[in-house]
Amino acid sequence: MFLAPQEQLEIIKHGTVDFISESDMLKKLQKSFDNKKPLNIKLGADPNRPDIHIGHTVVINKLKVLQDLGHHIQFLIGDFTALIGDPTGKNTTRPILTREEINQNAKTYSDQIFKILDPNKTQIVYNSEWLLKFSSIDFIKLAAQYTVARMLERDDFTNRYKAGIPISIHEFLYPLCQGYDSVALKSDLELGGTDQKFNLLVGRDLQSHYGQAPQCILTMPILEGLDGVNKMSKSLDNYIGVNESPKDMFGKTMRVSDELMFRYYELLTDMKPSDIAVLKTKHPREVKVQLAKFLVTRFHSAAAAQAAEDEFNRIFVDKGLPDQIDDFLVETNQPLTIVQLLVKTQSSQSNGEAQRLVSGGGVSLNQQKVSDPKMIIQLKVGEEVILKAGKKKFFRIKAKP
Amino acid sequence: MFLAPQEQLEIIKHGTVDFISESDMLKKLQKSFDNKKPLNIKLGADPNRPDIHIGHTVVINKLKVLQDLGHHIQFLIGDFTALIGDPTGKNTTRPILTREEINQNAKTYSDQIFKILDPNKTQIVYNSEWLLKFSSIDFIKLAAQYTVARMLERDDFTNRYKAGIPISIHEFLYPLCQGYDSVALKSDLELGGTDQKFNLLVGRDLQSHYGQAPQCILTMPILEGLDGVNKMSKSLDNYIGVNESPKDMFGKTMRVSDELMFRYYELLTDMKPSDIAVLKTKHPREVKVQLAKFLVTRFHSAAAAQAAEDEFNRIFVDKGLPDQIDDFLVETNQPLTIVQLLVKTQSSQSNGEAQRLVSGGGVSLNQQKVSDPKMIIQLKVGEEVILKAGKKKFFRIKAKP
Repeated sequence: MFLAPQEQLEIIKHGTVDFISESDMLKKLQKSFDNKKPLNIKLGADPNRPDIHIGHTVVINKLKVLQDLGHHIQFLIGDFTALIGDPTGKNTTRPILTREEINQNAKTYSDQIFKILDPNKTQIVYNSEWLLKFSSIDFIKLAAQYTVARMLERDDFTNRYKAGIPISIHEFLYPLCQGYDSVALKSDLELGGTDQKFNLLVGRDLQSHYGQAPQCILTMPILEGLDGVNKMSKSLDNYIGVNESPKDMFGKTMRVSDELMFRYYELLTDMKPSDIAVLKTKHPREVKVQLAKFLVTRFHSAAAAQAAEDEFNRIFVDKGLPDQIDDFLVETNQPLTIVQLLVKTQSSQSNGEAQRLVSGGGVSLNQQKVSDPKMIIQLKVGEEVILKAGKKKFFRIKAKP
Repeated sequence: MFLAPQEQLEIIKHGTVDFISESDMLKKLQKSFDNKKPLNIKLGADPNRPDIHIGHTVVINKLKVLQDLGHHIQFLIGDFTALIGDPTGKNTTRPILTREEINQNAKTYSDQIFKILDPNKTQIVYNSEWLLKFSSIDFIKLAAQYTVARMLERDDFTNRYKAGIPISIHEFLYPLCQGYDSVALKSDLELGGTDQKFNLLVGRDLQSHYGQAPQCILTMPILEGLDGVNKMSKSLDNYIGVNESPKDMFGKTMRVSDELMFRYYELLTDMKPSDIAVLKTKHPREVKVQLAKFLVTRFHSAAAAQAAEDEFNRIFVDKGLPDQIDDFLVETNQPLTIVQLLVKTQSSQSNGEAQRLVSGGGVSLNQQKVSDPKMIIQLKVGEEVILKAGKKKFFRIKAKP
């Protein structure tokens, strides 16, 4: 049923950042192998943010690897804290979720992860199941298992404490709740991004306090966003959502830098380093198309990937548009004439020069030549047009969100 | 029914260290006066340590003053934490108390405080009544009301954190529980020793968060123990217990220094500073007898006070013993001859000198002349004898506890 423990270990540790610890994990794998009993693998998710992007899939891919190795996947929805909301009442952007909203978000979540994981082999669990039953005494006993000094060692707490930014005491309780989830689930291994390392370790400690063998922990790298600088996140608008259309998924992938493209190959595919090295000898555009098709295939289908490529070629390649076009953001409530837009994008040095460029037929929007210098451009959020000025200047004009 | 608010305020604030704040208190007193409704006055007690000493009575006397002014006294037994014990399991000296033990301790407590307070006008309350009903959500909401930084400002937390001495997170929850008690009781004023100031202020803050008018707080000075240096405490064996016999209470009082005696007058009696000034012009021994009789009268009776004085005179004054005799501690498991004892107490310079002193009739124990230099002295815990060596050297020989 299971592969040999050492063989499993090699597969599991591939691409990880932290793995605490290999020797403990090997023992667990050996025991699982001997008893023909799968290990409990935990991944926690926040039901406040149900939309996942390909950055999240780095960890989910690893979960899939463990599922394929025959282990038991427990996908935990951290609904307990969501049911409480922000108890300080200060954060109005994080309202209390109703049971229905949480279920809806959990559904959204599972629809997305089941593009990778096998739904028949994945257990979805909610931590409200055990944490809502906690009495005041249970809570005090839980809080007694950890010290203030160790909690303050968590990076974000350290920074806030030093900077004099308030930390409410209940924020110390949340990592303990999260850690207790591992006790409740009897987790053998918990996965997370590198930014989750501290919380995963709390689970390890608490299991020891509650008389269980501590779980192993495994962290995966954080994926950079489309800008190649910041971590991929919705709030920075540098992400590719798992639920995005094939067209957007393909187009966004085509716009990443060559360097970032190889990073995505490393973290989002299961290609070996040697195969990726071969890709580096090929023409970058070809390799990027391959990545874009891979992603669309994974989250939609091979047919959708081919259609997206054809559409992309029709719009960009056949019309002589470059793959990478810089964004230029405009206000939604401030219409601009084409002349003003040319000046603002510094495509033209002056209104006069811009007018001459339009009159001379050197300006187009979405491949349509513009003839009227007084033409008004006004975009709604989510809309975009490709501005071509002269022969070599291209801008993707987008409304500011 | 009530005195004028301003008049009450002057009486209440007499002898206090912190009073936060007089103006708020005046408003509360005015409202109480106008509505003919007494204020809720809170004092909390730890059921783990039911034996109280006269140091505790400094605050209880103030409670009596408030009771006599017509206000409602709520004497809170903090049994919630006692029911939990030490959740870290590290402190074996603080076991979990059963409901019966807590009730027994509460009884011991009330027997003692009712030597000062009127039992018919004192409400005894237990915080387990509301805190045991707390759900996990209630607890998180409570913890959200206070920040880590503010909690770390409490002196003992600051010192331990700086010294690297572990503080368990649940220790942050206890001041919040104690503060919530003020919410549950709708306290108007909470009393405590100066060392309780931080905790009393937490109650004030929490009441605001829970939509109540914040309680006023009042702290009383900490009484020095018989040594005149450390705070009075059982563990330092420098205390006079409220439940001690008239003889011990009288004897211990007679042994305090003249300086400390006036401090006790200030903190334990309701004498005015002008009257205490008059006492300072009198002979100290006479003034000390007066204090000793005052204390015995308060905790026993006037008759017991007179009997204690007579007994004291019979033993000490009539037999020419000084009031103040230094203690000398001996091991319980190590018998000494009278000669060895004389040398150890440095009453004699050598065994030979000690033997000559005994032979010459210059040594007595409890006023009985000792004639045998080989006489053995061995004491059990709690026993003591007065050793007289020569005409001027006296020691109270006691067994080490």
